[in-house]
Amino acid sequence: MSKDNSKISISVIKRLPRYYRFLGELKANGIERISSNSLAQMMNLTASQIRQDLNCFGGFGHQGYGYNVAVLHSKIGAILGVDSKLKTILIGAGHLGNAIARHLDFEKKGCVLEAIFDIDENLMGKNICSIPIYNVAYLQEYCEKNKPVVAVLCIPKEAAQSLADSLVSAGIRAFWNFSHYDLNTDYQENVVVENVHLGDSLLTLTYRANNEI
Amino acid sequence: MSKDNSKISISVIKRLPRYYRFLGELKANGIERISSNSLAQMMNLTASQIRQDLNCFGGFGHQGYGYNVAVLHSKIGAILGVDSKLKTILIGAGHLGNAIARHLDFEKKGCVLEAIFDIDENLMGKNICSIPIYNVAYLQEYCEKNKPVVAVLCIPKEAAQSLADSLVSAGIRAFWNFSHYDLNTDYQENVVVENVHLGDSLLTLTYRANNEI
Repeated sequence: MSKDNSKISISVIKRLPRYYRFLGELKANGIERISSNSLAQMMNLTASQIRQDLNCFGGFGHQGYGYNVAVLHSKIGAILGVDSKLKTILIGAGHLGNAIARHLDFEKKGCVLEAIFDIDENLMGKNICSIPIYNVAYLQEYCEKNKPVVAVLCIPKEAAQSLADSLVSAGIRAFWNFSHYDLNTDYQENVVVENVHLGDSLLTLTYRANNEI
Repeated sequence: MSKDNSKISISVIKRLPRYYRFLGELKANGIERISSNSLAQMMNLTASQIRQDLNCFGGFGHQGYGYNVAVLHSKIGAILGVDSKLKTILIGAGHLGNAIARHLDFEKKGCVLEAIFDIDENLMGKNICSIPIYNVAYLQEYCEKNKPVVAVLCIPKEAAQSLADSLVSAGIRAFWNFSHYDLNTDYQENVVVENVHLGDSLLTLTYRANNEI
């Protein structure tokens, strides 16, 4: 799968989870097939955009029939890697880290959250949803033993880059970064970063609310 | 300001908070001016992209000098509306709502979080960072009295659309939506929505980790 997908643009990839979500809802509602026109209307896209996106993966539609919802949902899920079970750790068990650990269904997104790390001594030995919280001093040793590949960073921006550097040395190759800081992604070719900037999103909303666009 | 900005594309607008953040850090570090080349390198953009983006707002650079960091930061802040003090409410004081209320510096993003609503009777009379939590039954009356314009939705997807509909009737014209649901934005011309889909972001990371792109 990975070789075939290597030429797909990042903008198409970023739309795939949304297709997956809409198709999952259709499937849950018992809808068996859908035309590109109807899917387009639901998703506020054009039918030609949908056909173009799905063609990147070989296309799954049939002229005059539309898309088989369950088949398309399952194929997009496989492309995204929803069954990957990537070993995942979360660093920073403050309010945001806590909420992320509880709120996200990691396993349905291809990740298995196995350990949480923090500097707060009071949290040691505790857990969040049965996931143990360890001292961040144990991080390197944990990584050597358990080989996690994804790290969720819910730490202050001051600590983000240096921690990320040491995590890359320890074998982490994907970062989900909630720090108010754009992680430098130039480490190595095979390290990927998704920066989630909630503050940027709120500022965009403020602009749009003020300008009504 | 609002009229002049009405033709700016949403993709430029979505990049402005990032410019604002980088310029804020430069300013905090005592940097007084920066060339478009240096800014481009920091932000992983091209210099021509930066010049093009900032030209949308009349451009603030001077040939051979570059950009005055403090001036550009302040002008972009004014465009974004960081001093707007938009009255804001948050609905859903679960783990995610709680974290959002505590973690985000709303005032620096042009919003003032004034009230939180939940259905959990046990939370009534409590507060988060001094912001009172009210019963959701009081929502309509609160809106009539206090005229909030921004609503942060941290509620299950089943409740999102119907609650949003009633909030629009109550005068809300901007939604920051964390429900696993794309709010229908077709209400009225002047209602804006920022959907934050954390699950989509994690799935994108999974794909990228699997495909190393």
